[in-house]
Amino acid sequence: MADTITLGVFASGGGTNCQSIIDACEAGRIDARVGVLITNREDAGALERAANHGIDAHIVPVGKDLSEEFHAADERHVEILRDCGADLVCLAGYMRRIGSGVLRAFERAVLNIHPALLPSFKGAHGQRDAVDYGARVSGATVHFADEEFDRGPIIIQAAVPVVPGDTEDTLGARILQQEHRIYPQAIQWFAERRLKVEGRSVLLDPPSRGSYDTQGPGVIISPPLETEEA
Amino acid sequence: MADTITLGVFASGGGTNCQSIIDACEAGRIDARVGVLITNREDAGALERAANHGIDAHIVPVGKDLSEEFHAADERHVEILRDCGADLVCLAGYMRRIGSGVLRAFERAVLNIHPALLPSFKGAHGQRDAVDYGARVSGATVHFADEEFDRGPIIIQAAVPVVPGDTEDTLGARILQQEHRIYPQAIQWFAERRLKVEGRSVLLDPPSRGSYDTQGPGVIISPPLETEEA
Repeated sequence: MADTITLGVFASGGGTNCQSIIDACEAGRIDARVGVLITNREDAGALERAANHGIDAHIVPVGKDLSEEFHAADERHVEILRDCGADLVCLAGYMRRIGSGVLRAFERAVLNIHPALLPSFKGAHGQRDAVDYGARVSGATVHFADEEFDRGPIIIQAAVPVVPGDTEDTLGARILQQEHRIYPQAIQWFAERRLKVEGRSVLLDPPSRGSYDTQGPGVIISPPLETEEA
Repeated sequence: MADTITLGVFASGGGTNCQSIIDACEAGRIDARVGVLITNREDAGALERAANHGIDAHIVPVGKDLSEEFHAADERHVEILRDCGADLVCLAGYMRRIGSGVLRAFERAVLNIHPALLPSFKGAHGQRDAVDYGARVSGATVHFADEEFDRGPIIIQAAVPVVPGDTEDTLGARILQQEHRIYPQAIQWFAERRLKVEGRSVLLDPPSRGSYDTQGPGVIISPPLETEEA
């Protein structure tokens, strides 16, 4: 086991990814604890989840991108993250740009999850865009965040089929199931200090001991998961 | 079984996709025969494959895109395809743009295969671009061709993992294995008149009777294959 790391989680919405991270921590499946939740919205479902688990939470409105309020929020984010001793920042359905202050203070320590196989279907509607494009396979991506949306080096991807009659919601639910598997895994690899970034490539060292055999039909998780029980 | 359709196959390179189509025809796995091979290169490996199987072949140099020679070649292509009674045109590693004459004469009857999960990694180097991007999952796509490269409605996709140490060649080989499974399947669905295009979506009617269970770990083929034996 690795030393327990402290996570600062950002969420704007219902917070199911936040919940899957909390659950993985509490079940001891990953060597991490959620130190703080930060949201930009008073009505974020993630706030109730944090409260239920006794996790400190902060609502920080961010204003327009790159406005004065945005930069003040960025500074406030850094302050909150430092106060809780965060080692890693996890964007979990945080629908706003992350500030350059956070990116500098947590260099190569900010993760994001996106509901598509990047570089396909970047942006706020990954699930809908995949359906509209007529894609037959889509998925989810956990990557290091950088200054540009949905671009940083990829840690892990999960692929699932798009099936006849799929809508944004049905495909979204299928992808979400895999998001909840891969985000805790990415965090665990970070905690174990096994992620080395070389240019755009993320090297997992040593390689995953998991197997494609155990993922179930119609799913590819790459690198294979190690965090789940057989 | 459907009536046997006649294929006009275009190839520029080694022609392994051309070979997989010929093999599927000869083994009776698909209701099709290759009526003609067209290539732009005298040294195309596909020429020998055609000769080995008694398939009529034509070398048609195409010149620069949209040049006079290009348009003349486009007309010649239509003539050759009509002479052999082609029902369906299959681009199989044909590295040149297909002319608007062929696209008009064979409306919604020109297929292309691309070694990536479109819309990711369009262009001539799908395998290399996936490795360089640090993608963890890539694959192959069979789609209806239209005027723009790698854009038309998607029929079937196969996804595979990118594994540590992969190069353009090792990933390419893994993808090629799946290309050889999905291209014959797409042709068979066309022969069975089960492909209906609605905007960007291709409806397979009736849906595939195949299963994700039989594809092997680390592979997603969607819709699932029907052409292979259990």
